[in-house]
Amino acid sequence: MDVAVIGASMTAFGEHDTWIRGLLASAATACLEDAEVAPSAVEHLYISNMASGEFEGQTGVMNALVSDIAAESAYTQRVGQTSAAGGAGLLAAWQSVASGASEATLLVGGEKMTGRTTREAADIIASLTHPVEYRHGVTLPAFAGLAARAYLDRTDATRESLAAVAVKNHRNALDNPDAQFQKSVDIETVLSSPVVADPLRLYDYCPVTDGAAALLFCPVKRAREHHEQVVRVAGVGGATDTHVVHERPDPTWMGAVEESGDRAFDQTGWEERAVDVAELHDMVTLLEPLQLEALGLADRGEGWRAAVEGRTARGGSLPVNTSGGLKARGHPLGGTGVAQAVEVYRQLRGEAGPRQVAADRGLTCNIGGFGNCVTTTLLEVAR
Amino acid sequence: MDVAVIGASMTAFGEHDTWIRGLLASAATACLEDAEVAPSAVEHLYISNMASGEFEGQTGVMNALVSDIAAESAYTQRVGQTSAAGGAGLLAAWQSVASGASEATLLVGGEKMTGRTTREAADIIASLTHPVEYRHGVTLPAFAGLAARAYLDRTDATRESLAAVAVKNHRNALDNPDAQFQKSVDIETVLSSPVVADPLRLYDYCPVTDGAAALLFCPVKRAREHHEQVVRVAGVGGATDTHVVHERPDPTWMGAVEESGDRAFDQTGWEERAVDVAELHDMVTLLEPLQLEALGLADRGEGWRAAVEGRTARGGSLPVNTSGGLKARGHPLGGTGVAQAVEVYRQLRGEAGPRQVAADRGLTCNIGGFGNCVTTTLLEVAR
Repeated sequence: MDVAVIGASMTAFGEHDTWIRGLLASAATACLEDAEVAPSAVEHLYISNMASGEFEGQTGVMNALVSDIAAESAYTQRVGQTSAAGGAGLLAAWQSVASGASEATLLVGGEKMTGRTTREAADIIASLTHPVEYRHGVTLPAFAGLAARAYLDRTDATRESLAAVAVKNHRNALDNPDAQFQKSVDIETVLSSPVVADPLRLYDYCPVTDGAAALLFCPVKRAREHHEQVVRVAGVGGATDTHVVHERPDPTWMGAVEESGDRAFDQTGWEERAVDVAELHDMVTLLEPLQLEALGLADRGEGWRAAVEGRTARGGSLPVNTSGGLKARGHPLGGTGVAQAVEVYRQLRGEAGPRQVAADRGLTCNIGGFGNCVTTTLLEVAR
Repeated sequence: MDVAVIGASMTAFGEHDTWIRGLLASAATACLEDAEVAPSAVEHLYISNMASGEFEGQTGVMNALVSDIAAESAYTQRVGQTSAAGGAGLLAAWQSVASGASEATLLVGGEKMTGRTTREAADIIASLTHPVEYRHGVTLPAFAGLAARAYLDRTDATRESLAAVAVKNHRNALDNPDAQFQKSVDIETVLSSPVVADPLRLYDYCPVTDGAAALLFCPVKRAREHHEQVVRVAGVGGATDTHVVHERPDPTWMGAVEESGDRAFDQTGWEERAVDVAELHDMVTLLEPLQLEALGLADRGEGWRAAVEGRTARGGSLPVNTSGGLKARGHPLGGTGVAQAVEVYRQLRGEAGPRQVAADRGLTCNIGGFGNCVTTTLLEVAR
């Protein structure tokens, strides 16, 4: 069964004075309105969320959401895959329609994080890594610092070239009213911000965020009743790398990104491995060039040039993170992978407003842990 | 794509001196050995688990398991659906194969609960309900007491008829070496045990349990290379009821059980709504008759007669919970739905040893919350 997306929404990302259920319900309702589909028509409802139990003592958010939007007796399930839960949700939603189990699948991803201190949030996030790494202080931000040092040593990349990713993504967010940061930064701002994990600094990292996003999936044949220009899922592939990062031969090579990309592109039947727009998982600036390389969209060791040379800017040959990315749109863990696909869907539909680019094919890449689990999704305008 | 099961395993259920990762890896490895499939052949790996983060501060168990069994770069995802995570895992695994995304999907469900006090475990489980219910003391065991009182008032059922469920399931567990309890009980034992939520007593309830179970799924055409007698998934359906129990018209009617059963049976193409063996979610004795009724396997208000009259005993017309059920085999939350299907698979394969019954078709019903989310699965010997 060929699968399409017929609706999309997201809450503003930032700090919200509500619980996770409020965020999820808000995104879900707006998505159904966007698609002009009644809640009672939803057959499967997937919730991408990392840690609503740990953040707010709420483990029944999927059942709660069904009632909050009056979608009983829709089947529901929580999709967990740490900070890649949103991407995993895309695969789950695709499978539910492709298998014939559901003709209307609503995917809602979100996280409520700001009710905790940054220290508490960091501890919750660190619970995804192996305890032995955490005990030695090797949290995700620390991994990023170690990998960045290795990348700068082994390639011609400069410290400035990583900062250029932050500058670009902050600039893009200025045109996204839902983005957490509406603030232009320059190279100097990034390089003079406090050190987090040498050589990386505060402005290399994404913030702590509340927010949710939603998408509605159905068979392509039904989507044609809703839209003249249908957006279909061309491919979706997930893959894993070793759980413990030090077991990998090279920390600057994202093996699971490569593998998930291969699986997604293999599914498309496209002649070229090329897309017109991409949302990449820039939890930290370094990850944007590393994903370009592992996805085969830049040569190995050369991904850093893309932001420096403007290739990934909005006017470049492959605009990346037109939404502002995790860096500036924000990163509500389970919500991110869904929000990435919301942005690509809007770009393909011509609904991206001031940040619109010309695009028939788009890619999202959502990463859990430090490349532990990755889902790559390809959307295209159906012909 | 027609989907089959080609391997099954479970750890002993009870108290284990290991963490959740040890339990999951043990069940996963044994399942692959049972199927004679190498870890590297696994394409998708689903982990059914309710609360490893809350119980042990471990949120990355899915990525960890991939590495623990050397199955990189298999795609992995955690399937969350409170205490119905195992049943939801059956649907997720079925979808992954039916959609063509995976030709070898390993499903592992489990929970490590005994590292916490019973009070702590109860608080974690209560986090699935609406906070307003919990604040008023209406936990799941309390719901069961309220519903049992209503059931005894409205039907001809006696207190003894509910105890008969516990007696039967404890008797069955005596022939299951993996069951938590190896202890015969009689009606008097149940009725003289301490009151938990009037009219229900300690022996009406399932215990707190550590354990894991696993199943391997593949297309039926591949399963025929492994087995002469292939077990296929004939149907699998999930459904929800209101999140807040007091919004339901009748607390003694499990609407989501009925709906999920309808969806599963509709998928089979069977002429009759009948099975030869069933594993039902007897978190509390009352739930066994309520499920028989909602699944259409007993008349409304008459489900309690089945255990009293011996119809659901091993020699009866519809043996229920030959494994011992949640009551006596144990209930490691996310593990239960998978363990239910392991039992039915073994019955259909003729591998159930001293508790073997004659069966070509079997049913499992896994419940989250107090009937909030339910998955019903039908397995049959493929012809």
